[in-house]
Amino acid sequence: MRISELYKNRFEGDSVSVSGWIRTLRCSKSFGFIELNDGSSFKNLQIVIEEDKLENYSEVSKLSVGSSVSVKGNLEFTPEAKQPFELKASEVEIQGVSAPDYPLQKKRHSFEFLRTIPHLRPRTNSLSAVFRVRSMLAQAIHRYFSEHGFIYVNTPIITGSDCEGAGEMFRLTAGDPNSAEKREFFGKPASLTVSGQLEGEDFAMAFGNIYTFGPTFRAENSNTARHAAEFWMVEPEMAFAGLKEDMDLAEDLLKYLIKFVLSEACDELNFFNSFVDKCLLERLNNVADNSFVRITYTEAVEKLKAAKKEFNFPVEWGIDLQTEHERYLTEEVYKRPVFVTDYPKDIKAFYMRLNDDGKTVAAVDCLVPGVGEIIGGSQREERLSVLEERMEELGLSQEDYKRYLDLRRYGTCKHAGFGLGFERLVMYVTGMQNIRDVIPYPRIVNNLV
Amino acid sequence: MRISELYKNRFEGDSVSVSGWIRTLRCSKSFGFIELNDGSSFKNLQIVIEEDKLENYSEVSKLSVGSSVSVKGNLEFTPEAKQPFELKASEVEIQGVSAPDYPLQKKRHSFEFLRTIPHLRPRTNSLSAVFRVRSMLAQAIHRYFSEHGFIYVNTPIITGSDCEGAGEMFRLTAGDPNSAEKREFFGKPASLTVSGQLEGEDFAMAFGNIYTFGPTFRAENSNTARHAAEFWMVEPEMAFAGLKEDMDLAEDLLKYLIKFVLSEACDELNFFNSFVDKCLLERLNNVADNSFVRITYTEAVEKLKAAKKEFNFPVEWGIDLQTEHERYLTEEVYKRPVFVTDYPKDIKAFYMRLNDDGKTVAAVDCLVPGVGEIIGGSQREERLSVLEERMEELGLSQEDYKRYLDLRRYGTCKHAGFGLGFERLVMYVTGMQNIRDVIPYPRIVNNLV
Repeated sequence: MRISELYKNRFEGDSVSVSGWIRTLRCSKSFGFIELNDGSSFKNLQIVIEEDKLENYSEVSKLSVGSSVSVKGNLEFTPEAKQPFELKASEVEIQGVSAPDYPLQKKRHSFEFLRTIPHLRPRTNSLSAVFRVRSMLAQAIHRYFSEHGFIYVNTPIITGSDCEGAGEMFRLTAGDPNSAEKREFFGKPASLTVSGQLEGEDFAMAFGNIYTFGPTFRAENSNTARHAAEFWMVEPEMAFAGLKEDMDLAEDLLKYLIKFVLSEACDELNFFNSFVDKCLLERLNNVADNSFVRITYTEAVEKLKAAKKEFNFPVEWGIDLQTEHERYLTEEVYKRPVFVTDYPKDIKAFYMRLNDDGKTVAAVDCLVPGVGEIIGGSQREERLSVLEERMEELGLSQEDYKRYLDLRRYGTCKHAGFGLGFERLVMYVTGMQNIRDVIPYPRIVNNLV
Repeated sequence: MRISELYKNRFEGDSVSVSGWIRTLRCSKSFGFIELNDGSSFKNLQIVIEEDKLENYSEVSKLSVGSSVSVKGNLEFTPEAKQPFELKASEVEIQGVSAPDYPLQKKRHSFEFLRTIPHLRPRTNSLSAVFRVRSMLAQAIHRYFSEHGFIYVNTPIITGSDCEGAGEMFRLTAGDPNSAEKREFFGKPASLTVSGQLEGEDFAMAFGNIYTFGPTFRAENSNTARHAAEFWMVEPEMAFAGLKEDMDLAEDLLKYLIKFVLSEACDELNFFNSFVDKCLLERLNNVADNSFVRITYTEAVEKLKAAKKEFNFPVEWGIDLQTEHERYLTEEVYKRPVFVTDYPKDIKAFYMRLNDDGKTVAAVDCLVPGVGEIIGGSQREERLSVLEERMEELGLSQEDYKRYLDLRRYGTCKHAGFGLGFERLVMYVTGMQNIRDVIPYPRIVNNLV
């Protein structure tokens, strides 16, 4: 039986059998208490052991933190204690004794230290909570799209295109790249994908509504708390949909996910709210309960220019918004999530749909309090001639994008999509400040622990 | 409205609005029929257009296959026709006309030809059905594990370990590997993972039950119908579980997935059963309804030696079973899925748990009719000294596996898991014979379309 099940369906006097790892142990000569965790729940189970009820009491009472045991016993209610019940052990089978140099002794460890032991850190309260929430969010994303009829597409990780345009790419060889035996396995240069969007569009033109959810890569030299070389992205794409439907989907998805964790991960969120970020619950509830503001870039620039505040980066129509601007809009002006739409075409990607004014494109960024941008999307340029013209302006080769142009040749239609950085979402929902602490094995420049 | 919704909740006389792509069009001067598909369903929707009801009838009636349209009209029942209803169009908005050289004209195309147009082939009946089933299976896998309390772990794609032992690995550089500017981005050699198992074990020792579901890679020179350089794997891992629980999980998962598609993808499976593999439904129902046989390798070898059949590879205790042996067991001897357990240690991986006989290990392969092996798993060696001894026998460095040994130092416990090749599963469930036709963009040696 898992400890999470006990907390859901607890019956006094039940005969119960659980297995897990010892978090703490306090024993006297005749009785003692074990806090047992089995990873199914943030909560531990308190085990009571007594000398006259356990054959191996003296051995059990000396077990070290981190040891694994299987326990049988009876569940008893404890109305006066802080835990609702405890397990009176009638049998404790020792599975594995933890060596005395176990690095996770009972004390608080810094996140920096925990990063040096990625294989053990999921056993701590904080990282266990993070990775449980990460898993819930991923499962909820699949559930959301499944319930809404979106087809899940595994776009390729290895790509022959070096022109996705979203950043520097990793290159692949078979065999040691420093040796003469290295081979271009595919007969031509191969890289790791930076986005599944272009292939996602192919599938949206067949299935209507699709999403990708997989790893993407950047070989960029940025050693910050918000960048990793390997991270997961969610990229929905909808045919017969424009910017409005794109925003509707983004808002609905974010609210669904946040409500989901608010109801399913109470213990974890309360922990984060107490120990990581005191405003977390307030912020999440704010997002869940309010409709998002929708303004154009031009309106945003006016608000920023009228601000009483001094920005490090001065604001003029045409600049790319910086995090300070984004946070001012969402935290100080509107105090809730904000969609900013219709950016100048010169600061956005070639595939975004040109607006009738000839100078802005149907792009959208979603800004949230506490973070800034969390989602970036657009309506895609579906008009062949407009797209070709834009590509020529930017010096992009039609040869390289033949397939992408094919979509506009054969039954093109209005379509739109966005990208949600999954780790950014996990950081937002947990309040964690460093991307290294929300990825099981973070991949950062010069760091491959 | 999606066409799949119409087939679920159809009401005569409803005013309906749909968008999709023209599969076929037959028109006379005064009226015509359009078969419209929007990707939400295997089924098309029949649209009736009439000259005296449509302003743009002459334009619409000349549309080419593959063009996209948005249609408004009334749903009318057609009890004498093969389709249950049709849409009488009152308005047809042309979204995108398909160019006359559209490669998917109405005729049957070979799978070989379709592989040359991976961006368009999801618009065909067959590939659309494959990728819809692939998506359903992936979503059902997440649902199964979520409902059973398994934590989803994103194990890393980029790995610093070149000793995962499951095959040749791709190597990574930042920058062109043929130029002087190529860099070891991580400060040491980096490769693409061949399996998430070792990291999965780390997380199972914290959460109890976990699974991975992500891409894995092999830089192997095999150009067969069953091998790809990039493919997705599902790898569950359970703490406090042995080989029996491992088989129970594999059997329950396979049955769940097969029952799921049998009930949710009737149209697709009927299509495959008619056009791809006449025995498909019989085989899937057989798996769903029968309990799997469980025999040891030693028993399997006895059965094979007693066989009246001549094998290409002669059978002796100690050999690795070949596909011909596996298929004989599952198709001719037992006529249902078979777990074979307890293989000779010399043909299995170092981490599998040594049995008391000293010569076999707690490995398990699941064999299914029509394919052979679909799942491989094992109970892992949890005893530090036994594992160290085995690694020494095989000349594996303890340094390289420090983390893996740590799990045995700190609260080790009995645990087990398996790997399910996701593409093999999709092939099995659809009857498709070539892995290139169940991956959106297959990556094969010398082939990066």
